[in-house]
Amino acid sequence: MYNVLNKINGPEDVKKLSLEELNELAEDIREGLFHRLTKIGGHFGPNLGIVETEIAMHYVFDSPKDKFVFDVSHQSYPHKMLTGRKLGYIDDAHFKEDSGYTNPEESEHDLFNVGHTSTSISLATGLAKARDLLGKKENVIALIGDGSLSGGEALEGLNVAGSELNSNLIIVVNDNQQSISETHGGIYKNLKELRDTKGNADNNMFKAMGLDYIYEENGNDIEAMIRVFEKVKDIDHPIVVHINTLKGKGYQKAIEDKENWHWVLPFDKETGKTTISFDGSEDYTSIAREYIMNKAKEDKAFMVITPNMPASVGLSQKDREALGMQFVDVGIAEEQAVAMAAGAAKQGAKPLVVTNTTFMQRCYDQISHDVCINNSPVTILLNYTSFDGLTDVTHLGIFGLSAFSNIPNLVVLCPSSKEELVSMLSWSVDQKEHPVMIMLPGNKVTSRNADTSYDAIHTFKVEQEGEKVAILALGDFYQRGEELAQKMKETFHIQPTLINPRFASGMDIKLLEQLKENHELMITLEDGILDGGFGQKIASYYGDSNIKVKNYGLQKHFYDRYDPEELLKQEKMDTQSILEYIKSVL
Amino acid sequence: MYNVLNKINGPEDVKKLSLEELNELAEDIREGLFHRLTKIGGHFGPNLGIVETEIAMHYVFDSPKDKFVFDVSHQSYPHKMLTGRKLGYIDDAHFKEDSGYTNPEESEHDLFNVGHTSTSISLATGLAKARDLLGKKENVIALIGDGSLSGGEALEGLNVAGSELNSNLIIVVNDNQQSISETHGGIYKNLKELRDTKGNADNNMFKAMGLDYIYEENGNDIEAMIRVFEKVKDIDHPIVVHINTLKGKGYQKAIEDKENWHWVLPFDKETGKTTISFDGSEDYTSIAREYIMNKAKEDKAFMVITPNMPASVGLSQKDREALGMQFVDVGIAEEQAVAMAAGAAKQGAKPLVVTNTTFMQRCYDQISHDVCINNSPVTILLNYTSFDGLTDVTHLGIFGLSAFSNIPNLVVLCPSSKEELVSMLSWSVDQKEHPVMIMLPGNKVTSRNADTSYDAIHTFKVEQEGEKVAILALGDFYQRGEELAQKMKETFHIQPTLINPRFASGMDIKLLEQLKENHELMITLEDGILDGGFGQKIASYYGDSNIKVKNYGLQKHFYDRYDPEELLKQEKMDTQSILEYIKSVL
Repeated sequence: MYNVLNKINGPEDVKKLSLEELNELAEDIREGLFHRLTKIGGHFGPNLGIVETEIAMHYVFDSPKDKFVFDVSHQSYPHKMLTGRKLGYIDDAHFKEDSGYTNPEESEHDLFNVGHTSTSISLATGLAKARDLLGKKENVIALIGDGSLSGGEALEGLNVAGSELNSNLIIVVNDNQQSISETHGGIYKNLKELRDTKGNADNNMFKAMGLDYIYEENGNDIEAMIRVFEKVKDIDHPIVVHINTLKGKGYQKAIEDKENWHWVLPFDKETGKTTISFDGSEDYTSIAREYIMNKAKEDKAFMVITPNMPASVGLSQKDREALGMQFVDVGIAEEQAVAMAAGAAKQGAKPLVVTNTTFMQRCYDQISHDVCINNSPVTILLNYTSFDGLTDVTHLGIFGLSAFSNIPNLVVLCPSSKEELVSMLSWSVDQKEHPVMIMLPGNKVTSRNADTSYDAIHTFKVEQEGEKVAILALGDFYQRGEELAQKMKETFHIQPTLINPRFASGMDIKLLEQLKENHELMITLEDGILDGGFGQKIASYYGDSNIKVKNYGLQKHFYDRYDPEELLKQEKMDTQSILEYIKSVL
Repeated sequence: MYNVLNKINGPEDVKKLSLEELNELAEDIREGLFHRLTKIGGHFGPNLGIVETEIAMHYVFDSPKDKFVFDVSHQSYPHKMLTGRKLGYIDDAHFKEDSGYTNPEESEHDLFNVGHTSTSISLATGLAKARDLLGKKENVIALIGDGSLSGGEALEGLNVAGSELNSNLIIVVNDNQQSISETHGGIYKNLKELRDTKGNADNNMFKAMGLDYIYEENGNDIEAMIRVFEKVKDIDHPIVVHINTLKGKGYQKAIEDKENWHWVLPFDKETGKTTISFDGSEDYTSIAREYIMNKAKEDKAFMVITPNMPASVGLSQKDREALGMQFVDVGIAEEQAVAMAAGAAKQGAKPLVVTNTTFMQRCYDQISHDVCINNSPVTILLNYTSFDGLTDVTHLGIFGLSAFSNIPNLVVLCPSSKEELVSMLSWSVDQKEHPVMIMLPGNKVTSRNADTSYDAIHTFKVEQEGEKVAILALGDFYQRGEELAQKMKETFHIQPTLINPRFASGMDIKLLEQLKENHELMITLEDGILDGGFGQKIASYYGDSNIKVKNYGLQKHFYDRYDPEELLKQEKMDTQSILEYIKSVL
């Protein structure tokens, strides 16, 4: 096992191999992928499909002098194994040394930390333009594909590469006929036409954008890929190398069900079943899914729009088929998703946009300019809003409240129970007055009575009356507030007021004034960074009064691959630390 | 004068006219454009070029049943004149009733408030998709052009229209061979090929994206435009109508110098000279321009990247030519501009991205994910950062501090004098540790000594020592702080401490602690909204101390076409109101 891979400590070792050995290396790499991904999970299908291409890249080009930019970089695992990081794949003790994305801290062969799609061409045009300016010579290679082409940034990049650069740039379009879920968009029809004609279709979109173009149908054939890369190496103008590959190659289940094998939890290779055991308890994603499926049945004006993230609310292929016209997947294209929702709302439909928090950053201006200036009744439901979710630096949910709650007109709702999630969704989708964003809780599902209307925007709910101290515990941090209140009573014999703010985008001035009467200290708890968040609004409001305010939130920092509960302790946001603080000030 | 236009009170009146009258109407509309724009300024060349198209649109289609979406909507003036708003053009007393963009509050014929580019296709796909879902029938028409096609949102929209919609959508691409400055991007080469071949070029980008396509070379011929619109009316699938028009038609100077006549100040029609008199004093834009031109000469690694907004730092066509390879205009494509800068910085170049604050919202994620996670030494210089700048609701600069200062790793600098602007630019462009955003002051230029290094990030500068009250006056509000300090001394005989924070993205904890010793009240002043801004960080920091904090900032609100000084009074942010506040609490 790993006979050839064991000899590889860097790209220079790849260049020494015979074709036979290169093919053996491909098998070793797949073994390495199986080894790591069955045990700790990660991006599976995309990496299985790109093994031969990345071997050929390192065989032909000279990284790090030649510069590789991996789009999303979820397809960079074979590259990682070839650049001194094979132990992160074949040796359990080293798994943690490698992130799931390219990472300049790991290797000089990785240029950028990236995890969002559609960035590679733009980044590569910058490398190329600056190379020319500085009088350097080298190849710049962007590897894009797996659905990323539909993002506006990638299309802007193609357009600029096609006219503003008269020098070397090699854009490898890995066409595996799939995105996260199935592909959507006219360009994928064009890719099919190009595949069907071996690159000779009329109306080649890359040529239309001013780019040179070459097609290679055998993207999983190392010899063919070496041949094509040797042909374009040192080329003096931008060119697209369109390659046809098989996503999931080497694992039949992943080939047959590309969507569910795009990213995997640890699994058993024989059965294909995950080795993680679930306790079968309800989760908020399923509750959102259930709302969607029921609402769609009873209300034909309701529609779900997603930028290729139906999984963010658990919508399976079967669900999507059942939704029919009421479901629109625009492909990875967040700007389009949100602007389309604004158009649909204007028409009288009831659009719900669903994706993960981190990806919503990609359409900040569409939310602000296209939706909120127009006060369009669009509902945006975000998943992975919590510190206790995705922990890769590129996928953090902790910036959502800070980023979005300061956009005028946007009502940001943070449910704190299953009833509240459903009632907020129901209210939001049906009302016609406000754009609304709802943050799906990241903690365990709890049950509690909820209101049915949120028309009185920016009113907070007092869940427990008390004195001296008021705890404003937002969204999925409400249960932490509840725990804190309980502990305060036990420890200090003080019953604090416990408030469920529900709204993150504004303040309940009337209540805040009332609280002045018999309170000295306000404690705010929120699931996100402090800067720009909920608590700072409260601190500002009480700034020149006699009320003291202590805000709890994370630092404005790109945390990376942390242990969630450890992080709270480190930032003194755990219940024990807060109790100690309260003791010190009372 | 206005013989035909006087008869037009709505689209139904357009439909009654003969071809001869329609042509006369076009002349009347141009007269109306001259009348308004010579007197109050606005978008000039784009509207002159689109007169015949919009007459034909209203002749053939039935607005508001058929739905028109105007991209940027800076080309909607003829449409406005045809839909009951002619007085806003031909009668001085009514100028203020019409905004410079489409506005649903003005007319049912305007669907959206828009002022940013590239939104129309996405909005229109939403109108169309919801129309189908709700079982309605009507034409949906997006009018895009004048440079907007290069934006990611427009390209995402084309891609989705080309595959996810099997029903009526008419995308009119107004090809006037120009953007704000000249066009950039491969797609403009493709438009030229299409014009040169009367629509028959190989590699039609629209067809490549899955769209039907038709070309009309006489976009300024009403009869031809009526013919082409009648052909596509009620079509059952999406189609691109590519029309060739002349930007500035009807005014020779605007035809010859399309860039400078894109948007105009009030001017004399005979001479073409502006009627606004300038006092010849320095402005911050010119200071930024001068820095750029000097730096480029002395440092070949320095480069300027702009998303088609060279004017934001006053770079004329001659300047751009002088900059040569050190200047890159990517067309209207903010995501590309920022990501390209990240690539260039990685290569060792020194990229400076320039545009207006409001447009930077379009690449929030590129700033956060592509630049800041990677800590790339990219400098972003923004103009129109102030409440006292562009006052259209779609172009406000008051959200910049709130939007960007909460992104980790981004150092946000707010200069308060010309020396500080230049020293901040110099420091930022040369350093290699941080991504930096610099807010160009919106007030009159002042002169004061500045530091040369900002390596000690998030350190504030005490400009005047005092006691009891500390004024933290950020950026171009520093002079307001100075005035306040002066008035406090005169009125209350208190010398407050006056602080120039310089950094909006973090706090000088050491100084804030020191201030506790002999201060009771902190006053923060900033040029932007309160929520998510600078002052709230200070309030949060002092939240549980004995120090009181009063934050001054604008509301989280989409203000529209306001009088700047009146707004400050209304929000009690003028010096007099602040003095009254201080009096009330001291």
